[in-house]
Amino acid sequence: MAYTTLHIPTSGERFYNITENVKNALENILKDSEGKSVSGVLHLFTTHTSCSLTISEAYDPAAAKDVESFFKHLAPRNLGFITHTDEGEDDSPSHMKSVLLNQALSFIVEDKKLILGTWQGIYLAEFRDANKKREVLVKFVPDQT
Amino acid sequence: MAYTTLHIPTSGERFYNITENVKNALENILKDSEGKSVSGVLHLFTTHTSCSLTISEAYDPAAAKDVESFFKHLAPRNLGFITHTDEGEDDSPSHMKSVLLNQALSFIVEDKKLILGTWQGIYLAEFRDANKKREVLVKFVPDQT
Amino acid sequence: MAYTTLHIPTSGERFYNITENVKNALENILKDSEGKSVSGVLHLFTTHTSCSLTISEAYDPAAAKDVESFFKHLAPRNLGFITHTDEGEDDSPSHMKSVLLNQALSFIVEDKKLILGTWQGIYLAEFRDANKKREVLVKFVPDQT
Repeated sequence: MAYTTLHIPTSGERFYNITENVKNALENILKDSEGKSVSGVLHLFTTHTSCSLTISEAYDPAAAKDVESFFKHLAPRNLGFITHTDEGEDDSPSHMKSVLLNQALSFIVEDKKLILGTWQGIYLAEFRDANKKREVLVKFVPDQT
Repeated sequence: MAYTTLHIPTSGERFYNITENVKNALENILKDSEGKSVSGVLHLFTTHTSCSLTISEAYDPAAAKDVESFFKHLAPRNLGFITHTDEGEDDSPSHMKSVLLNQALSFIVEDKKLILGTWQGIYLAEFRDANKKREVLVKFVPDQT
Repeated sequence: MAYTTLHIPTSGERFYNITENVKNALENILKDSEGKSVSGVLHLFTTHTSCSLTISEAYDPAAAKDVESFFKHLAPRNLGFITHTDEGEDDSPSHMKSVLLNQALSFIVEDKKLILGTWQGIYLAEFRDANKKREVLVKFVPDQT
């Protein structure tokens, strides 16, 4: 009942749909429970401070694009009060944007199925320009039996 | 130990106080444990991408009103970069606003009581204009005994 | 398996690093399990509506400072639509800012260790001017054995 780690490569500021990665991780965690019904709670956690997790519209790519644009709009790179610029102009805005979304997310699992709404997808929101390999920890807590 | 589903009717962009609905759902889940002390964690999850869950001030309606106004202020409907307008001008801003709040929330339950601060209420934040029936999934995970 | 309560004193609008407080609380919860390996999920919950919990960059104080400035920028005290001013001009903006961060946070605990990324710290984000004593509830749910 430890956790497993997803490694998500990113190449620039964008929302990356990781729904299939998460579903596959759950399937892998549950692979030894064949024939049994398993329900519980799935916890995700990202260990970074310049990317986040979120659940958003996953049907029309234009919707995700607009949400990305919205975050750039909320925290532009030229805000006058910025002092933390060690790693470039995308550094401080990446922290601002990441706290607005989630580092931790919890999902209901019912009979081995991750419950998501019809239009929902799970995203890793990357806020840095450089190529990164991001960690998402996945821990499944089964219901008591 | 499956989950139950609340159906919350909404009629336009507003924050709807669902604290009583959630407390009633918990009470119903625990109705067979009379005489026993039950503690644990209550998980809420909404399956939509244009409404959210949040915990906010529930004493003065003017406070909730101001938070609603704040979200309209953060993501107005006429942002120049919006491309996703399939379902009207409230469509893309509804996704922007919903990711700023929560799709998933977890609460501590102690001796059958949902722990909330004196001024806290649980809200479904609706960001669409049209009448909707929203789903909020409720799953209680009791402590091991 | 009840919860414990941290009491965090704050003196004005600022992000307070509570990582050590949380780690100490976990250590205290687990103090009777010497020699055993204990993993699970740690839940935090704050019972207030004008402060929040968040996970953010904890290495360079300038980064936290910029995130604080960003919140003041997002919800300035002179927004024209504000009606809820009972407790001063920091009142309504404190609710606006608090819903943007978290009232509830969940962490993975592995072999008694709270899992955090290298640069991550846990913060109580205070949005009121006056001195306060804030409550953060801590509940550890161990894995089934």
